[in-house]
Amino acid sequence: MSTVATLTNHQIRLAARPVGIPTRANWQSASEAVPETPEGGVLLKTLALSLDPAMRGWMNEGKSYIPPVGIGEVMRAGGVGKVIASKNSKYAVGDHVSATFGVQEYLTLAEADFKRNGLVKIDLKVGSLTQWLNVLGMPGMTGYFGLMDVGQPKAGETVVVSGAAGAVGQTVGQIAKIKGCRVVGIAGGAAKCEWVVKELGFDACIDYKAGPGAVRAGLKEHCPKGVDIYFDNVGGEILDDVLAKITRGARIIICGAISQYNNTTPIQGPKNYLSLLVNRARMEGIVVFDYADRYHLAVAEMAGYLKDGRMKSKEDVVKGLDTFPEALIKLFTGENFGKLVLQVAED
Amino acid sequence: MSTVATLTNHQIRLAARPVGIPTRANWQSASEAVPETPEGGVLLKTLALSLDPAMRGWMNEGKSYIPPVGIGEVMRAGGVGKVIASKNSKYAVGDHVSATFGVQEYLTLAEADFKRNGLVKIDLKVGSLTQWLNVLGMPGMTGYFGLMDVGQPKAGETVVVSGAAGAVGQTVGQIAKIKGCRVVGIAGGAAKCEWVVKELGFDACIDYKAGPGAVRAGLKEHCPKGVDIYFDNVGGEILDDVLAKITRGARIIICGAISQYNNTTPIQGPKNYLSLLVNRARMEGIVVFDYADRYHLAVAEMAGYLKDGRMKSKEDVVKGLDTFPEALIKLFTGENFGKLVLQVAED
Repeated sequence: MSTVATLTNHQIRLAARPVGIPTRANWQSASEAVPETPEGGVLLKTLALSLDPAMRGWMNEGKSYIPPVGIGEVMRAGGVGKVIASKNSKYAVGDHVSATFGVQEYLTLAEADFKRNGLVKIDLKVGSLTQWLNVLGMPGMTGYFGLMDVGQPKAGETVVVSGAAGAVGQTVGQIAKIKGCRVVGIAGGAAKCEWVVKELGFDACIDYKAGPGAVRAGLKEHCPKGVDIYFDNVGGEILDDVLAKITRGARIIICGAISQYNNTTPIQGPKNYLSLLVNRARMEGIVVFDYADRYHLAVAEMAGYLKDGRMKSKEDVVKGLDTFPEALIKLFTGENFGKLVLQVAED
Repeated sequence: MSTVATLTNHQIRLAARPVGIPTRANWQSASEAVPETPEGGVLLKTLALSLDPAMRGWMNEGKSYIPPVGIGEVMRAGGVGKVIASKNSKYAVGDHVSATFGVQEYLTLAEADFKRNGLVKIDLKVGSLTQWLNVLGMPGMTGYFGLMDVGQPKAGETVVVSGAAGAVGQTVGQIAKIKGCRVVGIAGGAAKCEWVVKELGFDACIDYKAGPGAVRAGLKEHCPKGVDIYFDNVGGEILDDVLAKITRGARIIICGAISQYNNTTPIQGPKNYLSLLVNRARMEGIVVFDYADRYHLAVAEMAGYLKDGRMKSKEDVVKGLDTFPEALIKLFTGENFGKLVLQVAED
């Protein structure tokens, strides 16, 4: 296959499956020539990548909602970028797009792979590149459909969301406020909590790092009528604390369990799960890909909120493809403040 | 207050809250004179009582779907009996009724308490006294509404039910068969499993006492397409084993957790709960009382199945009010075979 002589594609590949928190040893850098763009296909340049807790799951062997990344394969990552060569009439050079880029500088896509890679054009008049990875991207879609379809919030209900300063959490809380709910976030550290309340307009935010019993005490103080909806990004003790406070008919959306992803011991199951019985409550999982047919509706709604200032979007931007291994770890230590984005190139 | 001179009411009262499995020391026998029947009220004679796993929960302190039984109070129990004195035009002496009798020989009810005690007439032409405690009673209603309303079975789906030879389990499995599902039971011991398959017509039954890994192996063998609906009466390891086998969009009905009720250590949470996420599945609790307005519809449907032989009903009848403490324990050791009933008097 002929190649574009001047372009080399730097990549981060999975070298070995991690035990616990991933380290440099789990990754390998690689370079390969960018292949010629196939007929009907496009060549994309990566501008920014979305770093997500779900990535930790993709690094594990075994059945999940999508196959694991294979050893030696480019690490999977959603991102935004630009068309730099096109043999497809629907895409022009200079178009901005969203797709599953992978942790690499370039992505060559045959037309047959457009759909599988989630290739769609994005409009920078609607939102910035990083917003397209945040409230207008996968985290935003996850928060929107998890809250609206699974949670089905009613005005006046109390919604609690963990990982409140993260990408999904900030979306969930802001939508719930717009829908007329009382919203209580859970986040790590005073600075995040203050931002969640002052900037995003949550009614309260509980600092889970404030000491033992902080979440229980915070729920008692800020959810006097109990918890009608809990959007769970973290699992572990916090899930149990909230289960102890749910109301009759409550809905718990299981979106993730970041507290458990790097466990080297078995996952901690929610020992208060029988609260579901007592309260006739429901715990349900969500995978965002199921809602792909309706992304455009949610994007249109959220773009309206961004425009009229009812919704804010915070991204934590880290630069350089090679910083990926360290950047990813920020998610698990809770160091990121806002949606974590890896900027790979300037637009 | 004047009393009916000839009647003494023997009772079993809660003497102390149990730690682990209840013993004789948790109970006290008592006798008191039967009070005069109030205007508008009735005097009922207990014929048979329903012994249920839920009773263990009622013995604990703390918030649940109904208040705990107080120390010194007559133990709560649903039952069937007969009107032996009436000052209410809707009830005649000789009428058979179902109500929350309590573990005692007589129940005097003021009209204002009819509803709270669930007083309803029962027709022995529709079902026997013990059937009115089984498929036509609370366990039957629990199984019916849990399966139909929460589980929403579709023909061809695979339904797994634990406690398959118990009161709720036998109802769930038989209804699921009638609705066209593949039904796999989980029960303790070869005799129960054989009965569940041969008499009740389940497609298979897994003996959880057959050794380590028996449930996992049984699910693999008998649920080749995975588990679409799991009706859980037991919790513990079995819940985790089933979670590992659920299909996309599966529904798990949390009806009870008999394996955990006598724990002196914290409840074992389902460590495989993230299977709900991967499979976009739902875990939901059910409390039968919520369906009281529709009991008559389910009773009519089940009575039809009993009549045309599509549904069978097995009761394990123990005799004598004073045997209550030992009889109850049979539920937790799995010694009962069919719906456990305490016969208090002959009709």
